[in-house]
Amino acid sequence: MPLTPHGSLRAVCGPAATVGTSLEGLMIAFRTPAEGAFLRAQDVRPAAHDADGLIYAPALSFPRHATAQQVIDTLRHMRPDAASSSYLFVTGEAGRLIGALSLHQLVVASPDARVESLMSPSLISLPEDLPAEEQARILSDSGLMALPVVDGLGRLVGALDAGDLLDAVEEEATEDMYRLAGVHKDEEISRPLSLAARDRVFWLIINLGTAFLAASVVSSFQNVIAHAAVLAAFMPIVAGQGGNAGTQTLTFIVRSLALGELRFANARQILLREIAIGICNGLCIGLLVGLLGWLWKGIPALGVVVGVAMLGNLILASVAGVVVPLALKALRIDPALASSIFVTTVTDVCGFFFFLSLGMLALQMGYL
Amino acid sequence: MPLTPHGSLRAVCGPAATVGTSLEGLMIAFRTPAEGAFLRAQDVRPAAHDADGLIYAPALSFPRHATAQQVIDTLRHMRPDAASSSYLFVTGEAGRLIGALSLHQLVVASPDARVESLMSPSLISLPEDLPAEEQARILSDSGLMALPVVDGLGRLVGALDAGDLLDAVEEEATEDMYRLAGVHKDEEISRPLSLAARDRVFWLIINLGTAFLAASVVSSFQNVIAHAAVLAAFMPIVAGQGGNAGTQTLTFIVRSLALGELRFANARQILLREIAIGICNGLCIGLLVGLLGWLWKGIPALGVVVGVAMLGNLILASVAGVVVPLALKALRIDPALASSIFVTTVTDVCGFFFFLSLGMLALQMGYL
Repeated sequence: MPLTPHGSLRAVCGPAATVGTSLEGLMIAFRTPAEGAFLRAQDVRPAAHDADGLIYAPALSFPRHATAQQVIDTLRHMRPDAASSSYLFVTGEAGRLIGALSLHQLVVASPDARVESLMSPSLISLPEDLPAEEQARILSDSGLMALPVVDGLGRLVGALDAGDLLDAVEEEATEDMYRLAGVHKDEEISRPLSLAARDRVFWLIINLGTAFLAASVVSSFQNVIAHAAVLAAFMPIVAGQGGNAGTQTLTFIVRSLALGELRFANARQILLREIAIGICNGLCIGLLVGLLGWLWKGIPALGVVVGVAMLGNLILASVAGVVVPLALKALRIDPALASSIFVTTVTDVCGFFFFLSLGMLALQMGYL
Repeated sequence: MPLTPHGSLRAVCGPAATVGTSLEGLMIAFRTPAEGAFLRAQDVRPAAHDADGLIYAPALSFPRHATAQQVIDTLRHMRPDAASSSYLFVTGEAGRLIGALSLHQLVVASPDARVESLMSPSLISLPEDLPAEEQARILSDSGLMALPVVDGLGRLVGALDAGDLLDAVEEEATEDMYRLAGVHKDEEISRPLSLAARDRVFWLIINLGTAFLAASVVSSFQNVIAHAAVLAAFMPIVAGQGGNAGTQTLTFIVRSLALGELRFANARQILLREIAIGICNGLCIGLLVGLLGWLWKGIPALGVVVGVAMLGNLILASVAGVVVPLALKALRIDPALASSIFVTTVTDVCGFFFFLSLGMLALQMGYL
């Protein structure tokens, strides 16, 4: 008996009467000739989309008292789509999900065992309104091929299988990477050039605003630079290292948020961890840059100025790399989308300000 | 009959003789009491790792002449691990894989149908030496829950299922993101602080080398900057926009390589596409920055200098964003690992050189 294309069931009650399909999950009476008994197979809503665009495969469910042989005979008659039958679900009162068994468990069971004795009752199910990345994480952690998706009343909506999720997970990861770099999430080789150029230039224009902010900080120190043009050479080092360190922290935080490892609950601990890394690396890079600056230009004060500015900027980069994405998440803005722009603004603007202020001080004290 | 923990089979020949396990895939004789016939079930090597660390589930295979009922009876006796039995494989001479059927097809088949009539003969199989991302893409495109993995002789090594792959795909995507930003691939919240700091500072030190390269370019124009300190204010804009545009192209190229959309065959077309985007965005951003520079400082020549430098740097960023990861891939170096450092070096060094050379020219001609 064939399935309709969207996966809901059609069935025969008695020899030839066809029962219609329904989106709401319909109860079908099946005569299983081998047993001469009626077995009820409940279909569920066919392939449903959640907010993130996940597609659930239809799932098959049976009442708790059905026997293994009855279920096998029913499947032989129904011939449902293979995708919908790697797990079979068991329902209790009011159509609520109470357990699951795999096709494998069904096949190896004694033919007269009841499904309620075969099923796993301690069932992980996915609420249908859970975000895609959460669903992926739970399914992946479960080690199962599929998990049932339920509505607010605990009724089966469908099943999420790992095969369907592979695409979704790849897509989410691509989106996060692209957003961090300011590339449109739909960009692919076949995307029209005009759209790709427009999406990317939009991001560059946004970044231009922050670049002009940094430029105005530098501009306000124009006199200092005119008197000690050597400072200009070190500007890209201070800002660049700050930007790199900020991007390291940011990428780690955005990915940890996506994988569910970072939550608001452990945010304070993570912030302290990143600040500690910032201090360690700031001391290391600050000393190194300071020494190199001194040796290169032969001006000790220049080494001190660039080294101290570097330490300050790397600590700041750690703080910004944690606080910005968390703040965006709290405001319900995708942390991957706008974080990098804010973080590099902080490291550029503050980096130049630290460095050129210290430079001005050294100039005024006659060390430069 | 229980499985050994690593998933290979133990079986009884006759009433009570236990046959040992073997890593090389062992032939087991099974007495199926219902049929009174011997059925041979071939176990395969248990969970194998490939070079990328993928773990293959063990797979069950049956000879082509076995009937559906014999296979079901055998499974009832063997009670293999559920993970190994969502698909059953069919072997011909010399243990070569010739087809597959799903447990579902087995259950709905007529009991005396032979597996060779039930199986899909046109079988996608994964060579065991294929990279993990390729395997993921093929499995994901196939829409199947699992695919068989074969050795060079076409013999079954195991099965790759989508559940196992979810982790691997998430991990690969995380690795690519982390490598682009210079974060160690194993970094997670529980990673000891000292290791995290050491890994990240290593990357910052590498970047420092390129930052000093950029600094030395700026340093060689120290006289120009001393005479026209206003140029210093625009340095971060030219380099920053170039770096951003280069990162956009680079991220897109690295991800396209990972997803298998970009190969050496279509590289030329992609390069031309990116250069076209670079010219469009360079004209757009160059004009905008030029105008803003002119209006801000009231010096038309400054607008021309910064605008032209921006156009040049954005075209260069496109070229570097494509050529660098492809060159690294050709050299068998992970393109995600070292690309960003080379691309930002190009955009920093050349951006400063363009901009300050043009500035020097404008200064010499008396426009600044």
